[in-house]
Amino acid sequence: MTTELYPRERPGLVRDAAAEAGLGAVLLTPGPDLRYVTGYDAKELERLTCLVVPAEGEAFLVVPRLELPAAQESPAGSLGLELVPWDETDDPYELVARRLPGVRTVGVADRMWAMMALRFRAAMPDAEQVAAGSVLRGLRMRKSAAEVAALREAGAAIDRVHRRVPQIIKPGRTEREVARDIGDAILDEGHARVDFVIVGAGPNGANPHAEPSDRVIRPGEPVVVDIGGTMPSGYCSDSTRNYCVGEPPAEYRAYYAVLEEAQRAASEAVRPGVAPEAVDAAARDVIEAAGYGEHFFHRTGHGIGLETHEEPYIVAGNKEPLEPGMAFSVEPGIYPGPHGARIEDIVVCTEDGHEAVNATERGLVVIE
Amino acid sequence: MTTELYPRERPGLVRDAAAEAGLGAVLLTPGPDLRYVTGYDAKELERLTCLVVPAEGEAFLVVPRLELPAAQESPAGSLGLELVPWDETDDPYELVARRLPGVRTVGVADRMWAMMALRFRAAMPDAEQVAAGSVLRGLRMRKSAAEVAALREAGAAIDRVHRRVPQIIKPGRTEREVARDIGDAILDEGHARVDFVIVGAGPNGANPHAEPSDRVIRPGEPVVVDIGGTMPSGYCSDSTRNYCVGEPPAEYRAYYAVLEEAQRAASEAVRPGVAPEAVDAAARDVIEAAGYGEHFFHRTGHGIGLETHEEPYIVAGNKEPLEPGMAFSVEPGIYPGPHGARIEDIVVCTEDGHEAVNATERGLVVIE
Repeated sequence: MTTELYPRERPGLVRDAAAEAGLGAVLLTPGPDLRYVTGYDAKELERLTCLVVPAEGEAFLVVPRLELPAAQESPAGSLGLELVPWDETDDPYELVARRLPGVRTVGVADRMWAMMALRFRAAMPDAEQVAAGSVLRGLRMRKSAAEVAALREAGAAIDRVHRRVPQIIKPGRTEREVARDIGDAILDEGHARVDFVIVGAGPNGANPHAEPSDRVIRPGEPVVVDIGGTMPSGYCSDSTRNYCVGEPPAEYRAYYAVLEEAQRAASEAVRPGVAPEAVDAAARDVIEAAGYGEHFFHRTGHGIGLETHEEPYIVAGNKEPLEPGMAFSVEPGIYPGPHGARIEDIVVCTEDGHEAVNATERGLVVIE
Repeated sequence: MTTELYPRERPGLVRDAAAEAGLGAVLLTPGPDLRYVTGYDAKELERLTCLVVPAEGEAFLVVPRLELPAAQESPAGSLGLELVPWDETDDPYELVARRLPGVRTVGVADRMWAMMALRFRAAMPDAEQVAAGSVLRGLRMRKSAAEVAALREAGAAIDRVHRRVPQIIKPGRTEREVARDIGDAILDEGHARVDFVIVGAGPNGANPHAEPSDRVIRPGEPVVVDIGGTMPSGYCSDSTRNYCVGEPPAEYRAYYAVLEEAQRAASEAVRPGVAPEAVDAAARDVIEAAGYGEHFFHRTGHGIGLETHEEPYIVAGNKEPLEPGMAFSVEPGIYPGPHGARIEDIVVCTEDGHEAVNATERGLVVIE
């Protein structure tokens, strides 16, 4: 078993999966799929960079000549892949098409820019395009031991940020000021990039995707802090905790206890063979039974890895059984207004249950 | 004439352009096209957000219910657009398809994720997809007075960063350390986001897209600093200057003088009616005449606005005449090794010539 985060066999695994799915080739432009397969964190540019994985034959990486040194220095440079540079006045789409004669179905990276997919369509008019996610999802959803370790490292980093939040939130400061300091802390604690910082005070806490505003945080007002970033490894963190300067309203305490129970019930429902919709239901049932059902109006979670949001989604209708190595958020919320709360951990499905990569207290953190 | 950066008439202009191009509708997901048309800086998420601009009828914005408050608070919320929220278990692609019966050709945002374009294709099997850039490019390439003002503001901000670079580069520091401080300065000076920081010392300066490394900057070693960010307005900066701790080698001084002349010649070639390839040739001719032609192996420039790289590209083969309001980089380089240099300004085509939005010294900055 490999212990590498980006093991050398991935291009071969994608080739096998493509062949099995009846695809003639897979085309991966910069983004999480390309990084997953090669380790190359290529910039998203208008100049085409594309890993071509034919179902028969060897994979090769098409790169603008300007990016050739970066590609060579990246992990992709030591995979033994052929690197195919193109010059400023070449047509790289034709270059790829010429090397894929007879291909009738081609997988394109889920996040390829549409303009690139359309250029490939014009260059390969006989090749039907399908989302490459159909081939890659099976690989990416089942995290290796090295990937789980990377998620643990990300979880520990965002936990360290949450532990600093009580020193950052102070009455009189605005959500925006607090969010700026939290963003700095996300970088300080080892992330390469801040992906999002939600600081929702009082009524803004009842909007799950609130942007930090100039609202001043007041005593007795609960604050939802939902934060995440990307580590140098490429793997993402995401955790939500709840804070209050002084005592929150009594009705908040009442539904917060329900929320803790719901988040625990959903986490404990995680094990191999269970459908994601059952994990969603485990949280939802607790919240509905307590009479707050209408105030929990989003899915319970999303997969996480090289993307903050990826498969599997923990949502009604998703019946594909969980397997060991699947990693996702468990994050029910209750938003009755004029405040709200959400508790979020990243959990990994293990052989017989779940492991949470976040370890900070899930209870309300009262700041004195 | 409007003085707004994101004027209310844009959805109508897109509708008119779509009708003229024979498109039944244009579909814009989060990214620069959506921001251009509505001012909405929407997050790129797996949940579909999409501005639908039918060639006949009124534009509407499809948003996940979780994003409805953000959409309402954004500039898009005051355009009088219908907002169409969808719930977690709805199919938003079908929702769009149902409202576009009979549409046979549809423009999709150039940077729409391919998986979304493929979902639209499945939901609207009779609609041929084309890149919406074909419709939007004519609008986006010709900057309004407000857009030019936003580019000036971005140019002034990155100029302030370049003025601080002589205090940041010190012998003994690594490229990476210098790049980190420059990144901080980019934010300090008013950008909302750092887009890229290239610090190429000595041989790394001969690689136009070098990543900052652990190479220690040594006296007498020229350093290429190519930096840019995005302002809160959405508009981008991009400027390259060259620094040296102490005196550079004599041969560097020799080609640097050629480079200054080439950059000046290309800028002075800019005026309405001139082809971008002629601007490219103006720089290239100077460099070739001095015998350095083989060491200038990239295009002379790229358009800039809501994206760092957009049309028009200043490259051989681009014959589409410049017009007032077009904005782009003029950035020839000479990379003979074991060092290299590039000088880059953003220039705007005016009624009778050009305006550079960058105003720092283009000469080599010697740090004592």
